[in-house]
Amino acid sequence: MSENFINPGDLVLIYLDEKRQFLIQALSKIRLSTDYGDIKLDEIINKEFGFVGKTHLGRNFYCLKPTTGDLMLKIKRKTTIVYPKDLGYLLFATIVGPGSRVIEVGTGSGALTLFLSKIVAPDGIVYSYEKNEVFLELAKRNLEKIEHKSKIEFFLRDVAVDGFIQKNVDAIFIDVPEPWEIVPKAFDSLRNGYHLVSWSPNIEQVKKTVDTLQTFNFVRIKVNEIIQREILVRERGIRPRERGITHTAYLVSATKAAPNSL
Amino acid sequence: MSENFINPGDLVLIYLDEKRQFLIQALSKIRLSTDYGDIKLDEIINKEFGFVGKTHLGRNFYCLKPTTGDLMLKIKRKTTIVYPKDLGYLLFATIVGPGSRVIEVGTGSGALTLFLSKIVAPDGIVYSYEKNEVFLELAKRNLEKIEHKSKIEFFLRDVAVDGFIQKNVDAIFIDVPEPWEIVPKAFDSLRNGYHLVSWSPNIEQVKKTVDTLQTFNFVRIKVNEIIQREILVRERGIRPRERGITHTAYLVSATKAAPNSL
Amino acid sequence: MSENFINPGDLVLIYLDEKRQFLIQALSKIRLSTDYGDIKLDEIINKEFGFVGKTHLGRNFYCLKPTTGDLMLKIKRKTTIVYPKDLGYLLFATIVGPGSRVIEVGTGSGALTLFLSKIVAPDGIVYSYEKNEVFLELAKRNLEKIEHKSKIEFFLRDVAVDGFIQKNVDAIFIDVPEPWEIVPKAFDSLRNGYHLVSWSPNIEQVKKTVDTLQTFNFVRIKVNEIIQREILVRERGIRPRERGITHTAYLVSATKAAPNSL
Amino acid sequence: MSENFINPGDLVLIYLDEKRQFLIQALSKIRLSTDYGDIKLDEIINKEFGFVGKTHLGRNFYCLKPTTGDLMLKIKRKTTIVYPKDLGYLLFATIVGPGSRVIEVGTGSGALTLFLSKIVAPDGIVYSYEKNEVFLELAKRNLEKIEHKSKIEFFLRDVAVDGFIQKNVDAIFIDVPEPWEIVPKAFDSLRNGYHLVSWSPNIEQVKKTVDTLQTFNFVRIKVNEIIQREILVRERGIRPRERGITHTAYLVSATKAAPNSL
Repeated sequence: MSENFINPGDLVLIYLDEKRQFLIQALSKIRLSTDYGDIKLDEIINKEFGFVGKTHLGRNFYCLKPTTGDLMLKIKRKTTIVYPKDLGYLLFATIVGPGSRVIEVGTGSGALTLFLSKIVAPDGIVYSYEKNEVFLELAKRNLEKIEHKSKIEFFLRDVAVDGFIQKNVDAIFIDVPEPWEIVPKAFDSLRNGYHLVSWSPNIEQVKKTVDTLQTFNFVRIKVNEIIQREILVRERGIRPRERGITHTAYLVSATKAAPNSL
Repeated sequence: MSENFINPGDLVLIYLDEKRQFLIQALSKIRLSTDYGDIKLDEIINKEFGFVGKTHLGRNFYCLKPTTGDLMLKIKRKTTIVYPKDLGYLLFATIVGPGSRVIEVGTGSGALTLFLSKIVAPDGIVYSYEKNEVFLELAKRNLEKIEHKSKIEFFLRDVAVDGFIQKNVDAIFIDVPEPWEIVPKAFDSLRNGYHLVSWSPNIEQVKKTVDTLQTFNFVRIKVNEIIQREILVRERGIRPRERGITHTAYLVSATKAAPNSL
Repeated sequence: MSENFINPGDLVLIYLDEKRQFLIQALSKIRLSTDYGDIKLDEIINKEFGFVGKTHLGRNFYCLKPTTGDLMLKIKRKTTIVYPKDLGYLLFATIVGPGSRVIEVGTGSGALTLFLSKIVAPDGIVYSYEKNEVFLELAKRNLEKIEHKSKIEFFLRDVAVDGFIQKNVDAIFIDVPEPWEIVPKAFDSLRNGYHLVSWSPNIEQVKKTVDTLQTFNFVRIKVNEIIQREILVRERGIRPRERGITHTAYLVSATKAAPNSL
Repeated sequence: MSENFINPGDLVLIYLDEKRQFLIQALSKIRLSTDYGDIKLDEIINKEFGFVGKTHLGRNFYCLKPTTGDLMLKIKRKTTIVYPKDLGYLLFATIVGPGSRVIEVGTGSGALTLFLSKIVAPDGIVYSYEKNEVFLELAKRNLEKIEHKSKIEFFLRDVAVDGFIQKNVDAIFIDVPEPWEIVPKAFDSLRNGYHLVSWSPNIEQVKKTVDTLQTFNFVRIKVNEIIQREILVRERGIRPRERGITHTAYLVSATKAAPNSL
């Protein structure tokens, strides 16, 4: 299976140890320098994924296939991004899958866009809205080379004012500082009986969003927080990591009741 | 869009309030009885999703599209199932998506099978292994009517002894009481450079699995726990829910290094 | 040391197993009935603490000294009580100890009163305020037989209106539904440079309390939550308990700046 | 009340803001330098606690009474210390209070010793054991000037080998890398029916300790973890702190059954 080989331009996760891992593009004539020694990228091209090489100082390095989480976290960002740990919630609180037509606002750096494009492929589509031109251009560059790029349509637009262009979409994902301003527009564009998810770091944002959802005939409104805790399993003992991320965002989900049946 | 109407046989989430929600199949002549009044299912067929009706006692009920989480949690089970909150980890710690060929062991009640079939559709496939015939038959019945049923192949087989049939799969998901017994077989069947995830409720299981993964040339081994905490946003005050689930499973992820390059 | 023997009237924790533990008063002629068999309390009087007896069905029971947590949790309550897990915060966020003069409002069922009376003994004092007469009478009955009863003075008084009687106390503990109404009175009665702690289940209560503290020249305002998670260590595996308490209260601490030096 | 004034040699918490707080001894001729300006300690002596002064750059600073938590966390350490958040557990899982005779092993840097000396004062006593002479000398220096210094007796001794000198103590606190080696000695020295608490960062230590406790006729064995989570309450929004401490130690508590009654 030829695709298991590292071709020029492929993204590769070079892994030396927990503190030395690098998501790089496999381009010839590039040299990756680490305190464990240098790696010539020439030498990994045409090797298979999983290849174990040696740095010029004799240390092992592993050429691994980047995970979806790697691709998301390594995206160049000017904004905070949705964390991988929060992604599961987006999936199980909605019904998105292959073929889904979904809306995302705002695009931000494109991390969620990448994830969604993969979930809806090959027949679905992600409509990604952003009102900040600088962010949108960055996101486009970030996503230039991803696999399901054709599943994304970008819109430079202030949704709070102008709304979404599409109607009857299967899910809406809201990642903006004032999600409550988007709720009325989401109500117009979401299919009856279907779901949206919004996330915000602050509790006041959550409160305003929930209040507006109630006003706009959304039901089954739930708020959750997803906490990821790493467990260190080592020779010298098993324990949770001592320091780490303790908060990213609150996740709000809701379902649209049909307006015409009230 | 005709598919937004409730057809006979469709799964519908009937929602009255947080404590009264029912995932049912829309079949005529069925009556759903609740302490808030009865609902004749005849009356919801051919209504659109999102429809708001009244019970015979005059209470509102909502006909909502079941989320992926609803579908998973409502599956008939004889085993514990992977929780929705833990699903995100399965996605971001691997590279599965549309077109992926993945292995799952064991099938259990089929909750994860359902989720994976959706993720890999329309061109991928889920090879689902189970050694307990009773579980396997239950899972088959549970999944008889799901959308992407054709994306699943079931195998009644003791993998710890006989291994997997497929080679070079894109991801392996392990949910058995002794995951360490599966690791050598997973090593044989996973693509070089690709990823597996295993989950277990007990820390001893995690330890043995991690030890075996290290022996079998897996790298980048990580253990995590995902904690979901519900926040109640109500008129009388915002607070986390007072009681709830405090543990489901530890999640172990790892990546296979290529054996021939060592 | 005679005090290590169970005297008539002593509180004893009768322990059979995790699900069968009873805080009782050792009175003759009483029989404790459990599904593991009956225990005649006559038989434990004059035994030493730690005594292991047998029920009439032959099961072991243990006569243990009640912990401070046992005493607190077993108090008869008409109100929610401060949880043992939150007590450490009260101590390390203030400077209370033997000899301290402290104020508590409201008394509630007396659980914290009991704890504080012990901390300030033998030379300190707890001024305990409650505006609900029913609660106050219950608390008095609950605390009738405790060791440091003489260290407590009760006041039936609406502090939000009438303030505290004492000045220059070493710490103030606030457990009322509207703590912000108490803050101005706390400012009048707390020593300059010293500390108060308030706790509330809802985030809106926290916000109002913090805002009022800022208005009233309190500094070093901190809000924390203490989460206790039980780990089950059993033959069949180590894991966190699957279900449990997920929220009790937010804890607010603050220090009073001297008003006359501004 | 003269004691509310800052005397030469008193410990004072100089607070400018969340990131600029200093526990210092009020000695004349000392100057505290901060990026918000300098503070001459001469100027705060004989002021009352709570005094608000100005740095030479015109910033407010507050002279606050150090809390018990401040005193513990600021202790000079060569070892990890018990965290304030874990202290509540020590109290409610035992019956220590004024007048208690308690054992602590190991002394470490003396942080818990300080806390316990306060709890048992004025009539109780803390027997503090340490086998490392360097640690013990440091602890002695750390505690030289504390209020209840006379309530502490130090012992340089390898308890795992030589046991404790005292019998019938009211509680034992174990903070050593191999707590299971101490359990048999704790059994000899603890009062029947009374309680011990041990804490360890790793789960293997917990397992061995629990196993040994079961062997040595301890009952009611419980393991808990206390997680403290800070909530930021700010003008721009309320949210949990984004990064922080995620693990310190597991806490094991147990009660001694009487050996002679079995």
